[in-house]
Amino acid sequence: MAGKTATRSDKPLLRALAGETLERPPWWLMRQAGRYLPEYRALREKAGDFITLCLTPELAAEATLQPIRRFGMDAAILFSDILLVPRALGRRVSFENDGPRLEPLSSSGDLRPADLDMLAPVGAAVRRVRAGLPEATALIGFAGAPWTVATYMVEGGSSRDFHRVKTWAYREPRGFEELIEGICDATFGFLSLQIEAGVEAVQLFDSWAGVLSAAAFEHWVIEPTSRLVARLKDRFPQVPVIGFPRGAGLMYERYAAATGVDAVGIDTAVPLRFARECLQPRIPLQGNLDPVLLRVGGEAMTSAFAELLEALGAGPYIFNLGHGVLPDTPPEHVAELARLLTGAAR
Amino acid sequence: MAGKTATRSDKPLLRALAGETLERPPWWLMRQAGRYLPEYRALREKAGDFITLCLTPELAAEATLQPIRRFGMDAAILFSDILLVPRALGRRVSFENDGPRLEPLSSSGDLRPADLDMLAPVGAAVRRVRAGLPEATALIGFAGAPWTVATYMVEGGSSRDFHRVKTWAYREPRGFEELIEGICDATFGFLSLQIEAGVEAVQLFDSWAGVLSAAAFEHWVIEPTSRLVARLKDRFPQVPVIGFPRGAGLMYERYAAATGVDAVGIDTAVPLRFARECLQPRIPLQGNLDPVLLRVGGEAMTSAFAELLEALGAGPYIFNLGHGVLPDTPPEHVAELARLLTGAAR
Repeated sequence: MAGKTATRSDKPLLRALAGETLERPPWWLMRQAGRYLPEYRALREKAGDFITLCLTPELAAEATLQPIRRFGMDAAILFSDILLVPRALGRRVSFENDGPRLEPLSSSGDLRPADLDMLAPVGAAVRRVRAGLPEATALIGFAGAPWTVATYMVEGGSSRDFHRVKTWAYREPRGFEELIEGICDATFGFLSLQIEAGVEAVQLFDSWAGVLSAAAFEHWVIEPTSRLVARLKDRFPQVPVIGFPRGAGLMYERYAAATGVDAVGIDTAVPLRFARECLQPRIPLQGNLDPVLLRVGGEAMTSAFAELLEALGAGPYIFNLGHGVLPDTPPEHVAELARLLTGAAR
Repeated sequence: MAGKTATRSDKPLLRALAGETLERPPWWLMRQAGRYLPEYRALREKAGDFITLCLTPELAAEATLQPIRRFGMDAAILFSDILLVPRALGRRVSFENDGPRLEPLSSSGDLRPADLDMLAPVGAAVRRVRAGLPEATALIGFAGAPWTVATYMVEGGSSRDFHRVKTWAYREPRGFEELIEGICDATFGFLSLQIEAGVEAVQLFDSWAGVLSAAAFEHWVIEPTSRLVARLKDRFPQVPVIGFPRGAGLMYERYAAATGVDAVGIDTAVPLRFARECLQPRIPLQGNLDPVLLRVGGEAMTSAFAELLEALGAGPYIFNLGHGVLPDTPPEHVAELARLLTGAAR
């Protein structure tokens, strides 16, 4: 495996994740494959529905590769969805225009054992992508972190106040723990499948980490994430894990210190000075340009980009947004960003 | 005015806002007047629509007083809405079941000068409430902070990613500044009207403070809030201002240090240790029990309540939630909270 490791570590993304400070930061964008690209919209139309797109290897691979062809990011992220795990756990999942819909779960007794065979097409998609990627481009796999996946399963979709899932967690912590553990197991299986098929790093999206009290954050973010990362490290010690606890705010430092992740994704609200002084000395960072700035482009984007690189470019850093690319982002602005990054050698 | 000041300072809420640590913390709850109370639902039905309820003095006063009669909080908060300011600025505002709807504003040129006469019934409601309140109960007035009011005016309601309002702020900062200034002026007028009619403290709700980058937070939260607070202090030096920058996370310290507010409301995600060590030595605090715990009640609520008082009760502190009372909260849980607070003398 020494040769394989050597090849891996040549890729800029993996070097940065290993703690190296590069001449220019490697970059990719959350939701870089998606609706802002006309070629994606055509593919989506061809697929019919979103889940078919995720579970048809040639379509998922094509969606993954589209932004790489246009913009040459340093990493592709597998086109997939965090709600494939609830689906493998036997829950009905559909995607409406205004977001995902699930049949709300109210008891851990209603969980079925995970059917990972259902997710086998994701492995096939990974193999296709690896075959189609330029040599220096890394492939990132991902899953939702257990808390965030639980919020969707219990709320039945997005939520404003998360009162259903929090009520369950407060009222019946043991039953909720069973749910979290069921999600953890399925997620470990899902990420293992991705890694065995060829992804070289994984990201855990904890999109709703920011709605919890510190005590609840400890129970439902730190603890399951730590267990999941430990299992991944035990089986795949060479695969870096990026944790993205969006909105974690005052809990970011604790998250970076306690979960065992190799790098932390920072959302737009994280002050750059805090990131540089309190997080980056401990762990490589990824983020956090406001996606709205990418939509707006021009001088506003350029100057914020320069500030970001000034603040974080002198340490281990991966350029990214603080959240996903907005659907109405002009692709030309992404091309401009690619030019800025190419010219951003220190 | 010395006699008036002396009377004011006897009220527990005002003593805590002045920095005193009380034997037991004074308390009130955000949205303590509202849908969880059957008598409120009856009143709302009688009023027909929400804005009529806000702008009919006897109805608004009755809604304000209902929770005080039942639970004896140390403060009443005027029954009103932060979207009365956009209405005074000539925007159409309606309330649907799933939240407020406004005609989205896209240019500061479409703003009319504020018509504060339209808000005169709010002053009449304040006078009625003052006449009906127990002697030791303080009356709090409020308004939305400029940034949060701007989000509703530009997005046309609640938002998931705030891309309209942020796009405007990034693309055309001067025009957006005019909007913020227009809101500031109207808000100063609205709060002045409330104070002149008899409210004894005011709260600024900055519900969407948490979605901004640090640089944008400085421009659109810190700066207008500081200006507004300075104007209020200039005209009403004796009236304390509570700032509630919900979700401000890593910017809470800066907010407490830079805006000139007398007290800071902390949301549920603020860790108690951080609040005690980094905020409370500088400023009185208010918050932050998870509203879901009040909905759940029982041991989960009782033990979290005890932890909260243990952490913050030894300094200047006002008990409250981290966000508003949820509509399906059993009123008995609020009664239980009142009993806990009455027994909470140190």
